[in-house]
Amino acid sequence: MEKKPKLTLVGAGPGDPDLISVKGVKAIQQADVILYDALVDSVLLEYAQPDALKIHVGKRANNHRFTQQEINQLIVAHAFNDGHVVRLKGGDPFIFGRGQEEKEYAEIFNIEVAVIPGISSSTAVPASQGISLTKRGVNESFWVMTATTSNGQLSNDIAIAAQSTATLVILMGVGKLQEIVNIFKQEGKHELPVAVIQNGTTIHEKFAVGTVSTIVDQVVKEKIGTPGIILIGEVVADHKAFDRIRTDLVAYDIYSTKQLRR
Amino acid sequence: MEKKPKLTLVGAGPGDPDLISVKGVKAIQQADVILYDALVDSVLLEYAQPDALKIHVGKRANNHRFTQQEINQLIVAHAFNDGHVVRLKGGDPFIFGRGQEEKEYAEIFNIEVAVIPGISSSTAVPASQGISLTKRGVNESFWVMTATTSNGQLSNDIAIAAQSTATLVILMGVGKLQEIVNIFKQEGKHELPVAVIQNGTTIHEKFAVGTVSTIVDQVVKEKIGTPGIILIGEVVADHKAFDRIRTDLVAYDIYSTKQLRR
Repeated sequence: MEKKPKLTLVGAGPGDPDLISVKGVKAIQQADVILYDALVDSVLLEYAQPDALKIHVGKRANNHRFTQQEINQLIVAHAFNDGHVVRLKGGDPFIFGRGQEEKEYAEIFNIEVAVIPGISSSTAVPASQGISLTKRGVNESFWVMTATTSNGQLSNDIAIAAQSTATLVILMGVGKLQEIVNIFKQEGKHELPVAVIQNGTTIHEKFAVGTVSTIVDQVVKEKIGTPGIILIGEVVADHKAFDRIRTDLVAYDIYSTKQLRR
Repeated sequence: MEKKPKLTLVGAGPGDPDLISVKGVKAIQQADVILYDALVDSVLLEYAQPDALKIHVGKRANNHRFTQQEINQLIVAHAFNDGHVVRLKGGDPFIFGRGQEEKEYAEIFNIEVAVIPGISSSTAVPASQGISLTKRGVNESFWVMTATTSNGQLSNDIAIAAQSTATLVILMGVGKLQEIVNIFKQEGKHELPVAVIQNGTTIHEKFAVGTVSTIVDQVVKEKIGTPGIILIGEVVADHKAFDRIRTDLVAYDIYSTKQLRR
């Protein structure tokens, strides 16, 4: 019996392997072939059938294994040769995951495509630190973006976001932190709370908290690198580590007021 | 043996009960008490121990069962009386879920609180329709908001969003659709693609697609009500139902050009 070619894009979640969905696990169990990324925990492959083919197509900076075009072609070739291909991607396949490109490529060949969403690191990593992206009475929105556009420029949307009350979640932006906080300084938002989280929801998690004015120094002090998430907004003040900073700010305000009174 | 009071906030996901995380299932299995919302599928309660207490605290418009304050107090009372309370909420507890309020209330009583994120309907419902919130070369961000602020006003952030390239995801806004599209018309974005999805990821899913100019009529035609999600942005044009609309627009453009040439 020939197997019907099929592609299922599965979001593996933000890092902790137990944060994959039940539906995602079921897809892995039914896969003939699994193409997985570098950010996916290999524990998840243990759900697969023993004879399922498992191919690491992970990409990391300076260590390209496969180009996107090669991954697209692998998906199609394995779907026709082997049947059900599960494409296991970190986070959610449709949030900066290039899942749409893989879906469209497979559809050119009339391959049936299903999408199983995942928990995005953009929402789960703040939650794992006890930071809610929205809070009644504080703000009504959150805005998720990459720091740079596909041509490498800093996104104009950051300047627009700096005018809004949205909690800003910036992915792939730790290397541009100084430029990002400068935009908020131009809006006079020096004391807006900021957090930076590396390797969120995993045992390697690192965390720094501060304000637009202080976060760059904090990130250096805590030795935070990539991949990291930047969070900017009043909701960050709810983090327990922010209490000390708030106290400092109040002390500073009193000092500033005294200066003015002189 | 007395049980240690504990609260775990669990995101049940966007509707499909298989979209809960494995970690969420494990929490339900270990719960002494489960407090669950109206939007949570009761199938998920079958993961619980037979002797676990299951309490429906769901709220729907015009059918209030418990106030938020009563829910907060129930959590604390059951944690002290019974041990591990799982608070099972639709979507993600920290995205418009008032999870932060429940966490803070429990912490006043020194109750240990854990948060297990869920797949938010804001990202999963578009994905289930094949719409990616971001697409390389099209846009670099998405912005999730409620249509109205906690005092019932239309959020100012919608006007700011209308100036950006962000894909806009508006929750709890179907009743304000006309006002929302008017803001985009003021920005001259009459042909920007819009989708409205009711009961996403469930068997009761309903879908309408159009442009800023046409979506209000489409929603009436498809008899779409609440709870629904509004999606505004170029990525909506990738939906298969949009092809026909795009063809109409092209035809319209040719017509307009001819009109101009006369």
